[in-house]
Amino acid sequence: MCRFCSYARSARRPNRDRCKREHMEQAAIIEPAEIVIKIVIILVAAKLFGELAERVGQPSVLGELLAGVVLGGSLLGLIEQNEVLRVLAELGVIILLFEIGLESDLEEFLRVGSSALAVALVGIAGPFAAGYAAALAFGLSHTVAIYIGATLTATSVGITARTLADLGQLKTSEAKIILGAAVIDDVLGLIILAVVVGLAKTGIVNAWQISKITALAIAFLVGAIAIGVPVAPRLLNVAKRLRTRGILTVSAFVFCLGLAYLAHELRLATIVGAFAAGLVLARTEDLAHIQERIKPVADILVPVFFVMLGVSVDLSVFSPVNPHSQAVLVLTATLLAIAIGTKLLAGLGVLRRGVKRLVVGVGMIPRGEVGLIFASIGLARNVITPGEYAAIIAVVVFTTFATPPLLKAAFQAGKKKVPIAE
Amino acid sequence: MCRFCSYARSARRPNRDRCKREHMEQAAIIEPAEIVIKIVIILVAAKLFGELAERVGQPSVLGELLAGVVLGGSLLGLIEQNEVLRVLAELGVIILLFEIGLESDLEEFLRVGSSALAVALVGIAGPFAAGYAAALAFGLSHTVAIYIGATLTATSVGITARTLADLGQLKTSEAKIILGAAVIDDVLGLIILAVVVGLAKTGIVNAWQISKITALAIAFLVGAIAIGVPVAPRLLNVAKRLRTRGILTVSAFVFCLGLAYLAHELRLATIVGAFAAGLVLARTEDLAHIQERIKPVADILVPVFFVMLGVSVDLSVFSPVNPHSQAVLVLTATLLAIAIGTKLLAGLGVLRRGVKRLVVGVGMIPRGEVGLIFASIGLARNVITPGEYAAIIAVVVFTTFATPPLLKAAFQAGKKKVPIAE
Repeated sequence: MCRFCSYARSARRPNRDRCKREHMEQAAIIEPAEIVIKIVIILVAAKLFGELAERVGQPSVLGELLAGVVLGGSLLGLIEQNEVLRVLAELGVIILLFEIGLESDLEEFLRVGSSALAVALVGIAGPFAAGYAAALAFGLSHTVAIYIGATLTATSVGITARTLADLGQLKTSEAKIILGAAVIDDVLGLIILAVVVGLAKTGIVNAWQISKITALAIAFLVGAIAIGVPVAPRLLNVAKRLRTRGILTVSAFVFCLGLAYLAHELRLATIVGAFAAGLVLARTEDLAHIQERIKPVADILVPVFFVMLGVSVDLSVFSPVNPHSQAVLVLTATLLAIAIGTKLLAGLGVLRRGVKRLVVGVGMIPRGEVGLIFASIGLARNVITPGEYAAIIAVVVFTTFATPPLLKAAFQAGKKKVPIAE
Repeated sequence: MCRFCSYARSARRPNRDRCKREHMEQAAIIEPAEIVIKIVIILVAAKLFGELAERVGQPSVLGELLAGVVLGGSLLGLIEQNEVLRVLAELGVIILLFEIGLESDLEEFLRVGSSALAVALVGIAGPFAAGYAAALAFGLSHTVAIYIGATLTATSVGITARTLADLGQLKTSEAKIILGAAVIDDVLGLIILAVVVGLAKTGIVNAWQISKITALAIAFLVGAIAIGVPVAPRLLNVAKRLRTRGILTVSAFVFCLGLAYLAHELRLATIVGAFAAGLVLARTEDLAHIQERIKPVADILVPVFFVMLGVSVDLSVFSPVNPHSQAVLVLTATLLAIAIGTKLLAGLGVLRRGVKRLVVGVGMIPRGEVGLIFASIGLARNVITPGEYAAIIAVVVFTTFATPPLLKAAFQAGKKKVPIAE
């Protein structure tokens, strides 16, 4: 409620807009209690839809996205973008990449070796080239085409790992190659992300700019790890000598946010810094304690990010009333075919014998967090239109939906042949 | 940085103000990355000043307040109030009261019995009456006088308990009476808070209004506990059957925020609801798990609240250049004398024999969180002036600073007599 006029939550839009315009400088329009109830709505919807998704055999992140679509302006209109929720969502994705970094072991996936690297490279180059070409064919600009190509590259580690675990196949060589390739994808994806964010900020596409950003991203990641790995344990030891409460939680959180901000200052994305912070702290002896303490914070903040991503989906671009809806649907179908086809191709990159290439290809299909992050940055910076954004979100949703049943089928198709050969 | 003009963090104030005025509706002025670095600054300063406070034998909350004063506009000017930080601070105080609720055991302090109740009642009535009378004598209005009286009532459980633990005196009957009385103080303080918040919202002071708010506050607390205690374990059991990640953390957090919002809707303070949520969940079998998971969230958010309280202190009211500075100083000294004198008097309320009344009185001196919350609500709603706010903050700071050494001295003064008697 506004202190200066009768605007209340029940007021209709024109009144609220007038109040916002006239009283914004005198008073905070966003009452803390309003955000409190919005956080409650977001978290309850995230958990309910997440649970429904799990019950039908899908990862809960899908439910959280759908919860956002339902709560957002296209349907219920209960939640809208505002500065506070945007910051909470940003903190959510920072913590998510920090956690992924904490869980990553650089050495482990290096052992899976050349097959994973080949799958990852084919799986990055294929979707990027095909997505870029298709976007140009649709008459879109170079910048938008690069952006769309980039969003099709990164495999979702979380969804793949979770599906493999659900199928009880985590120990197979297929699973190791998929996970190794997905982690390499993630790191390459973060470099691509740095490139596209630089692109979105400067709007310039040239080889010099791209190689500068790539060099900066690699230098930042390598530098953060090279300096961080020896320095972080000493900093933690100093911090642990302090007597104040919760020092390990605060130290880890501050380290993560500090590197996120440093990455931002270097024109990279904040999540690149958060991921680097996770990789560094993953090698300290306090890893287990840090994970234990960061988890509750992530449990609360991460769903806010995915729900707010769903809130930003504007369903009306698909509506038959929208003159561009057909173009959006065609774009979606094309990108989806590229997204699935090129990753199946990537499965052929497997060098080792006796590995089911179809399983590896299917395992690489899901696009997840990183693709959504690319798209949301592109939308926020007006690089891509709401229609293109909706098409990308649809690709992410469809590939994520399709993977669990497809992966199950691919494993079973493999099995039928094997009994005869054995 | 602003998307529409060259305003950057380095820009001077007039440019930023112009940008804010002109571009506020087109773009979010608050970039998430700006908040990220501010959270880093707040948490690092909170921990450094908290540590310094601990090293000189003071509770770390004092250091956090000082950190805010140093970071705020009066000195370094690194942190200023904004919508996002205000919401994070509000979430911090909500979590703090939720934690205090989780730690409270209604039955335990009922056993300490009549002495604690007598000390609590004298310790509430004394400061309130004396503060009210003094404020009227200073020519302030009835509303302001009630507000100032109210801020002088509540004892800080946190600071008292921490000091007693530091002195190794937690098991003495003095300690039990002090803690029991401080808990009763807290509950009564929350009712008084509900009254003063209602006062701040409506501006009306009459017996009917006060008794309505008091009845509402008691009905809310009793109702939340009466309904919550049987219902909460069932809700938790339903939630625990869900398969999604972090369900206990999210359930506890949502329960806390939900009751906080309900309290707000009933014109009570959000923290009354959070405290009630804590009391209810304190009686479930999941208490230990909930505390473990809420702690990291509190570790990060609670310091934001205390630092932002410090940021809101305007030191210039004490400056000799300020024409009212002398009045503020006289008000501060008067309120301080009342705050200490009346609580020492409360020590005489001890009914049990063989208890050091001086120790109990001194133990009741520290004013803390609740007093600060009263003051910040009063300032935000323009009930009290920045000068009166600064005087209240000074009283809280001085009483908190004074308690640890005074309590130590009071215990030792008692000891000198005992050895001869034994």
